[in-house]
Amino acid sequence: MTFKATVLTLYPEMFPGHLGVSLAGRALERGQWAIDAVQIRDFASDKHRSVDDTPAGGGAGMVLKPDVLANAIDSIADDNRPRLLMSPRGKPLTQKRVREIASGDGVVIVCGRFEGVDQRVIEARNLEEVSIGDYILSGGEPAALTLLDAVVRIIPGVMGNDLSGLHESFEGGLLEHPHYTRPQVFEGREIPAVLTSGNHGAIEKWRNEQALKLTRERRPDLLPNSQKGEK
Amino acid sequence: MTFKATVLTLYPEMFPGHLGVSLAGRALERGQWAIDAVQIRDFASDKHRSVDDTPAGGGAGMVLKPDVLANAIDSIADDNRPRLLMSPRGKPLTQKRVREIASGDGVVIVCGRFEGVDQRVIEARNLEEVSIGDYILSGGEPAALTLLDAVVRIIPGVMGNDLSGLHESFEGGLLEHPHYTRPQVFEGREIPAVLTSGNHGAIEKWRNEQALKLTRERRPDLLPNSQKGEK
Repeated sequence: MTFKATVLTLYPEMFPGHLGVSLAGRALERGQWAIDAVQIRDFASDKHRSVDDTPAGGGAGMVLKPDVLANAIDSIADDNRPRLLMSPRGKPLTQKRVREIASGDGVVIVCGRFEGVDQRVIEARNLEEVSIGDYILSGGEPAALTLLDAVVRIIPGVMGNDLSGLHESFEGGLLEHPHYTRPQVFEGREIPAVLTSGNHGAIEKWRNEQALKLTRERRPDLLPNSQKGEK
Repeated sequence: MTFKATVLTLYPEMFPGHLGVSLAGRALERGQWAIDAVQIRDFASDKHRSVDDTPAGGGAGMVLKPDVLANAIDSIADDNRPRLLMSPRGKPLTQKRVREIASGDGVVIVCGRFEGVDQRVIEARNLEEVSIGDYILSGGEPAALTLLDAVVRIIPGVMGNDLSGLHESFEGGLLEHPHYTRPQVFEGREIPAVLTSGNHGAIEKWRNEQALKLTRERRPDLLPNSQKGEK
């Protein structure tokens, strides 16, 4: 079964965007995944095709109307795909959640715009609020494209026989060790001697130490308490 | 002075992507910011135009060559713009850093691909490693587009007189309160009565309480220790 992404948006022309190029784009052409962008505005019921209205209680910005968004969501086949709402108020996206989504049949993603989405449709349609990071975007579309990029690259078959998905930041709970390649000397800087020693045990040990050191320095929050201290 | 983004990438065709549409797209057309995508491959020196090579010490994947990337970086005018490398090993992007970047003259962004970038060029060219979240992307391009979306929307003038940038998740250290708009009743669910009371003091108090409650439930990591407990 092909992984199917359905995106509800006011800007369907933003899709597939960068997902139409490179790794994700080739997989899209091969039919290893599919994407469908649904225009939320097509589900507005008044003659002005309004999708937003002023916030109850006052304040700046506009709020996406619950009835219009509910109609748009209800137009999609009721299958077992998770229904996400990209939102800075959501649960932070992790590589674990990316793997779960990639192992399923697909995903439905609602992209908010304006000041936000009416809370009642989030509850009534059981939308899972997901945040890709602690910053504010112009809307959910850049977040949806980012999430889908992370998901598509690990859909079975997309990376082919490439094993590079196995040793990566977060996959083992640590940031990844530094990388080096030719030339041997670059602007007076040499590749660390251990990496050209041919001693595979020593190389593996060095990489693990570097990954742990880097994680301690930059992201101690990722470590279990037992590994937070200095060695 | 116009905010100028220069992106170094193997996929210049991914830019401006979704940044050419909607808020960012209109600002681009108005000349309120500019973007230039530089093809890293144009700076390869061998006849095959190689940009990557196998990792020193072995392992899967390929590593972006330091000499090629250094040449690409050196082709850009040496101004005071920050030079970022999008990387899952980087410092997590925050709204504070977004505001700092938006208040400057622009930004230079290096997009990695493959297994990673040679560590020596990161050090020799003083690249600031930035992560947009704890998940793995196919390359730095989706991350660069996401970061630029966050930055461009708060460049002075882009949102016009819209004040909606002021009350948002993270801007006050809390997740944003829920939003509601018409209709008054949606599928049997009413707008909370306080929001239609006309009592502005009570509305402000309710919103602050909701924001704090939501942050405690979902993101206690964002709160200072004094506010983490139950009320």
